[in-house]
Amino acid sequence: MIDLSAYLKNKNQQINVALEKILHDSQPFEPIVEAMKYSLMAGGKRIRPVLCIAAVEAVGGKPQAVLPAACALEMVHTYSLIHDDLPAMDNDDLRRGKPTCHVAFDEATAILAGDALLTLAFEVLSSVPISGETQALGWLKVIHIISTAAGYRGMIQGQMLDMAAEGQDLTVDELKSMHALKTGALIEASLLCGAVLADARKRQMEVLKTYARNIGLAFQVTDDILNVEGNPKVMGKAAGTDELREKSTYPALLGIKTSRQYARNLVDEALQVLEVFDKDADPLRALAMYIIERKR
Amino acid sequence: MIDLSAYLKNKNQQINVALEKILHDSQPFEPIVEAMKYSLMAGGKRIRPVLCIAAVEAVGGKPQAVLPAACALEMVHTYSLIHDDLPAMDNDDLRRGKPTCHVAFDEATAILAGDALLTLAFEVLSSVPISGETQALGWLKVIHIISTAAGYRGMIQGQMLDMAAEGQDLTVDELKSMHALKTGALIEASLLCGAVLADARKRQMEVLKTYARNIGLAFQVTDDILNVEGNPKVMGKAAGTDELREKSTYPALLGIKTSRQYARNLVDEALQVLEVFDKDADPLRALAMYIIERKR
Repeated sequence: MIDLSAYLKNKNQQINVALEKILHDSQPFEPIVEAMKYSLMAGGKRIRPVLCIAAVEAVGGKPQAVLPAACALEMVHTYSLIHDDLPAMDNDDLRRGKPTCHVAFDEATAILAGDALLTLAFEVLSSVPISGETQALGWLKVIHIISTAAGYRGMIQGQMLDMAAEGQDLTVDELKSMHALKTGALIEASLLCGAVLADARKRQMEVLKTYARNIGLAFQVTDDILNVEGNPKVMGKAAGTDELREKSTYPALLGIKTSRQYARNLVDEALQVLEVFDKDADPLRALAMYIIERKR
Repeated sequence: MIDLSAYLKNKNQQINVALEKILHDSQPFEPIVEAMKYSLMAGGKRIRPVLCIAAVEAVGGKPQAVLPAACALEMVHTYSLIHDDLPAMDNDDLRRGKPTCHVAFDEATAILAGDALLTLAFEVLSSVPISGETQALGWLKVIHIISTAAGYRGMIQGQMLDMAAEGQDLTVDELKSMHALKTGALIEASLLCGAVLADARKRQMEVLKTYARNIGLAFQVTDDILNVEGNPKVMGKAAGTDELREKSTYPALLGIKTSRQYARNLVDEALQVLEVFDKDADPLRALAMYIIERKR
């Protein structure tokens, strides 16, 4: 196994440098850039970009070449958090230990900062210097994967279902479908983007998809568990909010113990499909474990 | 000169069929798709897609091939209207003669419908079947043009400046800079996308840029004039709102008569640069006239 903490530190630094560089190109800072940067550089875990890079490594590709995709994925993720936190949606005041974007700035600026990060993701993806048709087609495919995953049949649909479900009693299957869209789609996209850019074979692509679906769901189950028994100081956000909002969650439906076992089983299955890969996939293996063991 | 009314009718029909087809692929309709469709098919003038197609024709290209770009431009435009109308921004109740999206649905759905249309634009642009490197690079370039124009250094920055300007006295130059971003950037992008996809020469590209900047500004001056003396029934939105909000406008700064002359001069200049084109550019010529003569 690898030293995941060193691995994450190293990758996070690469990703943060790349993100800072993109935003610094626009100095002097306008208020809109301040708001974008505030949320983008608020200390997120960078799970999606790291998964993208780890997928590239598993397939034997060069991580450096996919940094624009890694950055775009984090921008799309951050935009979705800013908009989900808005008063008209989840109305959250705290995110990653800091006031949410609309609290730190104002509602209009937060809406536009989200819009701007989503748009910037596609600007970054279409700004990569291209040599040759294969590469051009690869980046078009990545734009397609991310836009589809983030769109109205993916992440946005998931947020619609999540809002509609508040106060309703969902079954475990309904909960799974909702999360597959709300968080699963972009996690799957993160791995697929890496795979496409590293020119993965079809069989490898299928394995990474199965891995993604399992850890995506395990991620959400763990999020629900943390919302029950996590430490708000470590998480940087309030705990117990799901229960207050009468949200259907895995702990509420299955109990904490069974939820934890369920997440564990999902990760075991993810690790099993990874067996077709050699040690280059060790970061993906370690990330799968991290996803259920994390404290924030 | 061409019969612009027949031309617009014909192009609008093509664009509407293409837009309907994109949304119909997702039947049965989810609430999010209802909201997207509500705003997208609300009877907009389709100026941006028509300009894109007319640019292709001016350069001698095939209009059918650029329909995905035309649709994407209209989606980006519609998303910007939905978000600008939100209570946290301009708080408008009426648009194109119908209740705005957040009034017809709710605020959360309107935010997400805007997000979804913006995202769908990039999905559409990255879904075009590609043959050959030139074509792949062309569509990547189009994605770059649209994302840059719509982003935080373009349209979004324009909306930030517009909100900051409310109640302030802007100079004519400040007003021009704001509109160059808020509406000008996407209008310029519309023409450039057509030019890129039709493989325009550098000189033609420059002419289309100048044309775009002139008619973009003329469009906004005319919008301001219509807000003073337009017929709300014809426009499908309230008149007199700029004055109520103490917005800086061309009529307020220059008077109606000088504003009308200014718009006329801008269009004259646009027509003049078009002289390098033959009669294939007649639709662009007619559109320039239409932009200042329209009643809505």
